[in-house]
Amino acid sequence: MLLPQLRCEVLHANQEIVRLGLVLSTFGNVSGIARDTGLVVIKPSGVAYEALTPEDMMVTDLDGKVVEGKWKPSSDLATHLVLYRAFLGVGGVVHMHSEYATSWAQAAKPIPCYGTTHADYFLGPVPVIEKLGADEVGEEYVRYTGEVIVRCFCDANPIDPMSVPAVLVAGHAPFCWGKTIDDAVHHAVILEYVAKLALHTEMLAGPTTGIPHHLLDRHHKRKHGGQATYGQRQGQD
Amino acid sequence: MLLPQLRCEVLHANQEIVRLGLVLSTFGNVSGIARDTGLVVIKPSGVAYEALTPEDMMVTDLDGKVVEGKWKPSSDLATHLVLYRAFLGVGGVVHMHSEYATSWAQAAKPIPCYGTTHADYFLGPVPVIEKLGADEVGEEYVRYTGEVIVRCFCDANPIDPMSVPAVLVAGHAPFCWGKTIDDAVHHAVILEYVAKLALHTEMLAGPTTGIPHHLLDRHHKRKHGGQATYGQRQGQD
Amino acid sequence: MLLPQLRCEVLHANQEIVRLGLVLSTFGNVSGIARDTGLVVIKPSGVAYEALTPEDMMVTDLDGKVVEGKWKPSSDLATHLVLYRAFLGVGGVVHMHSEYATSWAQAAKPIPCYGTTHADYFLGPVPVIEKLGADEVGEEYVRYTGEVIVRCFCDANPIDPMSVPAVLVAGHAPFCWGKTIDDAVHHAVILEYVAKLALHTEMLAGPTTGIPHHLLDRHHKRKHGGQATYGQRQGQD
Amino acid sequence: MLLPQLRCEVLHANQEIVRLGLVLSTFGNVSGIARDTGLVVIKPSGVAYEALTPEDMMVTDLDGKVVEGKWKPSSDLATHLVLYRAFLGVGGVVHMHSEYATSWAQAAKPIPCYGTTHADYFLGPVPVIEKLGADEVGEEYVRYTGEVIVRCFCDANPIDPMSVPAVLVAGHAPFCWGKTIDDAVHHAVILEYVAKLALHTEMLAGPTTGIPHHLLDRHHKRKHGGQATYGQRQGQD
Repeated sequence: MLLPQLRCEVLHANQEIVRLGLVLSTFGNVSGIARDTGLVVIKPSGVAYEALTPEDMMVTDLDGKVVEGKWKPSSDLATHLVLYRAFLGVGGVVHMHSEYATSWAQAAKPIPCYGTTHADYFLGPVPVIEKLGADEVGEEYVRYTGEVIVRCFCDANPIDPMSVPAVLVAGHAPFCWGKTIDDAVHHAVILEYVAKLALHTEMLAGPTTGIPHHLLDRHHKRKHGGQATYGQRQGQD
Repeated sequence: MLLPQLRCEVLHANQEIVRLGLVLSTFGNVSGIARDTGLVVIKPSGVAYEALTPEDMMVTDLDGKVVEGKWKPSSDLATHLVLYRAFLGVGGVVHMHSEYATSWAQAAKPIPCYGTTHADYFLGPVPVIEKLGADEVGEEYVRYTGEVIVRCFCDANPIDPMSVPAVLVAGHAPFCWGKTIDDAVHHAVILEYVAKLALHTEMLAGPTTGIPHHLLDRHHKRKHGGQATYGQRQGQD
Repeated sequence: MLLPQLRCEVLHANQEIVRLGLVLSTFGNVSGIARDTGLVVIKPSGVAYEALTPEDMMVTDLDGKVVEGKWKPSSDLATHLVLYRAFLGVGGVVHMHSEYATSWAQAAKPIPCYGTTHADYFLGPVPVIEKLGADEVGEEYVRYTGEVIVRCFCDANPIDPMSVPAVLVAGHAPFCWGKTIDDAVHHAVILEYVAKLALHTEMLAGPTTGIPHHLLDRHHKRKHGGQATYGQRQGQD
Repeated sequence: MLLPQLRCEVLHANQEIVRLGLVLSTFGNVSGIARDTGLVVIKPSGVAYEALTPEDMMVTDLDGKVVEGKWKPSSDLATHLVLYRAFLGVGGVVHMHSEYATSWAQAAKPIPCYGTTHADYFLGPVPVIEKLGADEVGEEYVRYTGEVIVRCFCDANPIDPMSVPAVLVAGHAPFCWGKTIDDAVHHAVILEYVAKLALHTEMLAGPTTGIPHHLLDRHHKRKHGGQATYGQRQGQD
């Protein structure tokens, strides 16, 4: 069996997002990539989480061809693959229909950076990509979703996907990622929390702009990059 | 004892909706139908959920005559029966006063389809039926409730009850249904979740119209009908 | 020891409101009355719930004189006593600073009857009594609170306290009651739930008036009084 | 090992704020001070809560110099120290990014005193300190945060920090304190609860001013100071 360790990590992460309350029913999926071989491990589609074993995980190449496994891969696979191909620092991807982040996605609004909780993980607003047009939701809908995400990070005002490791798909839900699968899951947890804080902040008729840039920057650098001072190891992410 | 298997399923489903947090106190009831004999099994009225056994379940015919059982059937029985008579594909019905769906019912507003979570299960808004008039809340109030629901699905712009398996009764609460009892309970879970997402979406001053039709259609067909691609079995519901 | 059975019931009810999430810290108290002797049993003031035994419960007469017990009675005793003296059908009283009912009290707004969940237990809005004046919050503040509640139910448009078994004290929190201690606790649970539903209903910009009177009446009578049809026993409350 | 008892208390309090749902991930820290020696015990920075032992706690002097311990102290240490130096009655400090209090901080609004739950613990609004300027978020950012808090309590309209034992840092989160570490944690619990009540109160379009001063005062004195009547011991805090 290929990639036994990665299969276990991907299985565990898929179960973890359910346990953390981020996923209702089968509304979520996590994948991981082995960068040396370019092989991706992802949950199968529509199988109950509690029944899954490492053997049930699907292994595909970066074009989506199944390399090993008896099921159909998660129906969102094509989006994951586009992200892995474009964002080379990414080792894990999480998709979920979690309550608060999905509400922002449904409202088609980016999540403003209202505080340092947000700034610690996302260097600016969590962007939202527009709803796809009628001609983009055919056969290739899931792949187009990934491509629109990538365009959003690479357009005229590029965003570093490692500094803003999440995006909202309007009318749908978020995708999150990270250097490792654990990071991707952690970013999913934080995204849901800052989405909740930001909703309550707006309900309090708070500021409509985020915190000032110097504060955003200050907090983010405390945890990221060469000058990071937070935690026990320099440069810890 | 008639229908021992169906009694167990109905009992289990009644306990499940409590366990899932959809029902406070005795504010809920689930029934199932044996289509071959036209016999309906439903929870008795006002008996504490934890004390119920399969023997306590009530068996009635489609006119509401008790065929077997020592209690009075659930006070909402007449509504369930109208739904079984009109919607022939329905095998189970759930009524509940769950927090978010009931809030939409109290606000007398249909739940707009704001995202793909909704679209995966409901092909359009979850409709609301208007409050009954003073002359409709007498002896036959519960039956009228069912009839107004049926009219709502069969009027000038008919809605397929299998594509939109839930309705809100204004000033009251939702009814949900499905091909099986399990489906009905699953639709109840999803209804409550999309009601919550939609409330938060409106609080974010999101779009007042739902997602575009092509996206709604695309997502729903991914899980339903002959072209369904989601999950492991074609056509799985 | 006087009233051993009533002491156990009162202790249990005090623990139950914590377990049900209605009480944070020591923000709540339950009492019960033995109508034959006019003796009231209530929780002592400020003692941690988990440490309480039946012996710790305080017994007082209807004037608040301690008849048995080693502690000071709950600081809200005087309000409970006024309610017992004025509302002769009441056997138990609950005070709590529960999240949603307290928010309505803080907003100084009655909870409108927006649906049948409410109507099943409260025959009309849950009223709010105005904040006491500066001259009413001295020594006799707690007693005045009770007296203002009683005036609210007995004024020009009297409300039957057994049909609306709860009130909000503006800027403070609710009091609930019932024929028995169990009923009072059950009404507290329902009050908190309808307060939550009503808040969400208002957030949805729902109707600013409640459900029509005929529907309110219809639902309430289904569970209460001689024509009650709900549950297994006629007239069950 | 220095201060073994205080180390245990600080460790326990750090774990308690996670268990109470006030802290997600590592977004929080508690410290305590031994006033006789001026030594402060605080959690290390960025170490997972579940792995911590009393030995992991860091001991520093009031200038932040590590006296004992193998880790870096919590990154918010400098703020804690400013509070200990300025508020001499304080024995414990809690920082957390809890959901509701942080939302008020993000909205940059003080929490008005809307009811007696608040008044029992905070003699007036919980103040908010303004976001720091670009020149204040450099090297000394964490210390400046503490100094702005102290200025807020000591300015033209001074606030007694023992009567209002919490503050919101705009765009960031709250700090709470108390005579003991236990008090500080208890104030954190209450702050989060009144923040939640106040948010819901505002959503109900409640009064924009708080409860009248006489009621605020009455309730607070019931639990605090020489005339306190609440609980079993006079003057209990």
